[in-house]
Amino acid sequence: MHIDVIASVGEARSDDLIHKTVIVIDVLRATSTLITALANGCGAVIPVETVAQAREIQKSGDLLGGERYCKKIPGFDYGNSPMEMQTKDIIGKRLIMTTTNGTRGIQKAHKADHILAGALINGRACAKAASELSRDLVILCAGTQDAFSLEDGLCAGQIVEEFVQSAGSTALEINDLGLAMLGSYRSASSNLEEAMLRCSNGRRLSKLGFRQDITYCAQLNQTELVPILHAAGMVPYRH
Amino acid sequence: MHIDVIASVGEARSDDLIHKTVIVIDVLRATSTLITALANGCGAVIPVETVAQAREIQKSGDLLGGERYCKKIPGFDYGNSPMEMQTKDIIGKRLIMTTTNGTRGIQKAHKADHILAGALINGRACAKAASELSRDLVILCAGTQDAFSLEDGLCAGQIVEEFVQSAGSTALEINDLGLAMLGSYRSASSNLEEAMLRCSNGRRLSKLGFRQDITYCAQLNQTELVPILHAAGMVPYRH
Repeated sequence: MHIDVIASVGEARSDDLIHKTVIVIDVLRATSTLITALANGCGAVIPVETVAQAREIQKSGDLLGGERYCKKIPGFDYGNSPMEMQTKDIIGKRLIMTTTNGTRGIQKAHKADHILAGALINGRACAKAASELSRDLVILCAGTQDAFSLEDGLCAGQIVEEFVQSAGSTALEINDLGLAMLGSYRSASSNLEEAMLRCSNGRRLSKLGFRQDITYCAQLNQTELVPILHAAGMVPYRH
Repeated sequence: MHIDVIASVGEARSDDLIHKTVIVIDVLRATSTLITALANGCGAVIPVETVAQAREIQKSGDLLGGERYCKKIPGFDYGNSPMEMQTKDIIGKRLIMTTTNGTRGIQKAHKADHILAGALINGRACAKAASELSRDLVILCAGTQDAFSLEDGLCAGQIVEEFVQSAGSTALEINDLGLAMLGSYRSASSNLEEAMLRCSNGRRLSKLGFRQDITYCAQLNQTELVPILHAAGMVPYRH
């Protein structure tokens, strides 16, 4: 099995993702929020690119969520914080969500056979689902405006580590960035929150008052829920 | 002080390197070979892009070195192996050298204030020289055909580690890829050779019979020699 880690959305080429399973990662915060929403009973999360598209497809009862420059979009029900998703108000609802990098990652992967959403909070479950889907794997770090983001790389390393632990490294062909992220994860795993507070997005979110989000998003394997793209929406993966 | 690590030559923009010190890294094998040549008494190494350019600027007494697809160029005196540079034949000579990725890295950095060549064998000395040059630092991993190469990332991490050990991490602003490479280096530092045998270039070079080169290039801090670009040639940096 091949595992390729890609550093940011800008470096991914859609045609390279054909016949693959793609795990899109945007730890701070799009995929952490998406996973938390579905884990709390939200029926489906519909990722869209623009605010206009979100309003256009909104039907009665649908909720709107998303951010621009880390801040909630005016008139939307939710921003892009996983803390907001820990509410009964989302149970059974559709959440239409627009974020900068995470949404672009999911759209970039549209030619893949399967698209999953990963974060530190569901890394182990995500690796298990990807293994069951029996395709070569691409782990697409969303990054931030086409630059690599440490927290996404750490999560990529976490997922590679799960494969190495279960399959052994000789059964895997891991690309060089994947090997580097595995090492980086191993080095940071005893204190992921500290690592995330030092990186670019962590510093920015802390300044904006989202320190609690970082603490939450830094927790490993908090849920078994894995979002998978089905039609136009992300829904819980069923084993 | 800012330290930015860039994953491959293709991702570097020359204008971003203005006023900076740039350390170009191509551990397997261009910069390891260049360093070894100068450490063994070669007078200057002239990096050029094409085989035709190498022949064009060759004067009486100049030596030609370089590779295409890891192999020596027909009619050249040397390939791109550091083992070939451990000879008295190069003392005081100019070596005109053309390699695929390392040369491109040096040329991409042409707008920088200072251009150094780094590898695992001179990482500590390279960090010391860069510190003395008192500019913000860009560590440019050459990579392989615009993809990230693990061994270059490990060397970037080694150099970042030298700065962290001497300046403390609070005095440094390290970009996210730099933080990731620091972690990756820490995780692999107890057995760099093993890590390098598992990565893409390591596997390729092993198959081609260059296993000994990997063992050599994986040794940390074997020399104090740091190549610096002066006019059109790389010469030893003087403190």
